[in-house]
Amino acid sequence: MISEKMKYMVANGSAIRAMFEEGNRLIKLYGAENVFDFSLGNPNVPAPESVKSALIEIVEETDPIVLHGYTSNSGYADVREAVAESLNKRFGTNFAGKNIIMTVGAAGGLNVILKTLLNPEDEVLTFAPYFVEYRSYVANFGGKLIEVSPNAPTFQPKLDEFEQKITPKTKAVIVNTPNNPTGVVYSEDTIQKMAAILEAKQKEYGTEIYLISDEPYRELVYDGVEVPYLTKYYDNTIVGYSYSKSLSLPGERIGYLVIPDEVTDSELVVAAATVANRVLGFVNAPTLQQKLVAKCLYEETDLTYYNRNREALYGGLKECGFECIKPEGAFYLFVKSPVANEKEFCEAGKKYNILMVPGSSFACPGYVRLAYCVSYETIMNSLPKFKELAKEYF
Amino acid sequence: MISEKMKYMVANGSAIRAMFEEGNRLIKLYGAENVFDFSLGNPNVPAPESVKSALIEIVEETDPIVLHGYTSNSGYADVREAVAESLNKRFGTNFAGKNIIMTVGAAGGLNVILKTLLNPEDEVLTFAPYFVEYRSYVANFGGKLIEVSPNAPTFQPKLDEFEQKITPKTKAVIVNTPNNPTGVVYSEDTIQKMAAILEAKQKEYGTEIYLISDEPYRELVYDGVEVPYLTKYYDNTIVGYSYSKSLSLPGERIGYLVIPDEVTDSELVVAAATVANRVLGFVNAPTLQQKLVAKCLYEETDLTYYNRNREALYGGLKECGFECIKPEGAFYLFVKSPVANEKEFCEAGKKYNILMVPGSSFACPGYVRLAYCVSYETIMNSLPKFKELAKEYF
Repeated sequence: MISEKMKYMVANGSAIRAMFEEGNRLIKLYGAENVFDFSLGNPNVPAPESVKSALIEIVEETDPIVLHGYTSNSGYADVREAVAESLNKRFGTNFAGKNIIMTVGAAGGLNVILKTLLNPEDEVLTFAPYFVEYRSYVANFGGKLIEVSPNAPTFQPKLDEFEQKITPKTKAVIVNTPNNPTGVVYSEDTIQKMAAILEAKQKEYGTEIYLISDEPYRELVYDGVEVPYLTKYYDNTIVGYSYSKSLSLPGERIGYLVIPDEVTDSELVVAAATVANRVLGFVNAPTLQQKLVAKCLYEETDLTYYNRNREALYGGLKECGFECIKPEGAFYLFVKSPVANEKEFCEAGKKYNILMVPGSSFACPGYVRLAYCVSYETIMNSLPKFKELAKEYF
Repeated sequence: MISEKMKYMVANGSAIRAMFEEGNRLIKLYGAENVFDFSLGNPNVPAPESVKSALIEIVEETDPIVLHGYTSNSGYADVREAVAESLNKRFGTNFAGKNIIMTVGAAGGLNVILKTLLNPEDEVLTFAPYFVEYRSYVANFGGKLIEVSPNAPTFQPKLDEFEQKITPKTKAVIVNTPNNPTGVVYSEDTIQKMAAILEAKQKEYGTEIYLISDEPYRELVYDGVEVPYLTKYYDNTIVGYSYSKSLSLPGERIGYLVIPDEVTDSELVVAAATVANRVLGFVNAPTLQQKLVAKCLYEETDLTYYNRNREALYGGLKECGFECIKPEGAFYLFVKSPVANEKEFCEAGKKYNILMVPGSSFACPGYVRLAYCVSYETIMNSLPKFKELAKEYF
């Protein structure tokens, strides 16, 4: 009775659902402290204390008609201005409130901008491995997701293949740096080369190709690495941001789109994205959360927690003999499976109550993703289990 | 550069945007107290005091990792159970948590269920006048919105035309009672007849036809009128609810879908709607608001405010000579334009700083909608202006 597309999606979504259920089953059997669930990107770091006090202050001091009422479909004017100003301070950009649209997280923002841009059969390029939902988001609007193949072991984008895969039907490119699932950060050199390719192809085909930067992990970087702000390298860049990870608010669904003046027909794109936000049913980003993030714009994400986890898990796995690039950002390790079929490796892990996501869920078989946004204890307790698991292979 | 569909929508959305701008222009010129803006369905009643205390209590007492973390795509299990139980108590239904999906308002819920159900070219019936966004929501998934023509002056649904317009391609029917823009509540007799028609057509065509009840105004009824709970009359009923009006939280984007066990393939529909909630980019309903509404399930909406407005505006307009059915619900009056082209009448109103929405925005030309969710003062101050306006016609 449901639609044909949804039948397919329900059937194909069952692998991930099955993993959730497996986790719950193991927890019931062995207790939460004996299950090492590295499958979920749900931050284990609580929101900063200032989030709590800001929420209470806002609720106590704001007229409820303003606080809980509809805003413009693009968000509160003061919040949009505050977001623009904070970006200008941090990145030397030159945005105004009119360049910002508050969205229901980055997932909402990506859907809004894809609805805004895509005609049926338009192509959207992305680099494997990639967040698997991109495929659904692009399909929502009749577009086609075209993959550039993975570039193991560094997982920097394959720019030669990228260039070849750009066609007159290419409407957008989605990049995600720091990357889920690899943790890799694209270097400035990479971004400059990518921008040059896009400029040349726009000229060659007489088309517009929008670079969509999906940035939920922007602040999660280690060892002093810098993440280039992409609007400075390529005019037709649109940024999708989420506070899910930086303020540990994933369930609250709050983020924004940046549509700079330099984007071709910028005003029209903003107007259309505003309409798209409405007709997709988001209407406006949750109002209390809009006010909250405006108060916490200069909050620094505490990276020590994730960094300690990163060092412990990366070091532990290398010691066991596993191969993995040391991630510079996000909170994922992308580990080479010791057997070609990484699903077998994931199954083997379950014997030790270790849950990992197969790389084929990110269009990159032969690898597994471990989300280290868990407690340090979980990581330390998992290491002897990884040692046992490694003995099966090395 | 934007998509062809969005070009059309941006161009066509400009009438309503122009009205917003006109309101702001008039306020700047004449002051807010001299502008009578009846164009917006934004409640002027603040959220109940208990909303404020509940929000603070939740923020103070809940572990932030739980409070702001991802939930299942269908929402917190405890919230879903609490919602089901409250419906059972109020309506004698028999729902469990598994029948509830928490959504980003009713607009989010409608998009989720339409994504779940519609194949391209499927038909969705609705009764004019109707909330104009239904057309966009259905179009989002390639469906066709088919209108049943308005039944002036009572605006009860035309059931004979409805029956004739059901085809083997009819996948769903959207009803909205209490109704925006008319304020009309469908009687139990109407619902029973509608259910009988749908049952017969399902049998005749061997299809499933889902009745989608869009209920943001359920609690806003006057004179002791009862709004039948539709799942009790027709098995394939799905309810979309929003707390926007009952708790005055429109900006917070919180509501739910009810998918009863009686719906054909209920479990599959729930599973697909859960996936749809994710892939459309909602991911989950905002978590703090989920917890909030669970605490306020038995809060009574204060109707005295809206009822006083209703009596004052209805009485005042009748006295001027305008024709209008007395609404039993919601917070709208749907007034007959004294000239055939109601846009002319709206223009004439602007001379007196009165802003009204033309009925053609609801597929019902010849009428205008007045939203009386404004301050009582605005209504009382507008009445002399309406008197002057009336003199132009009667």
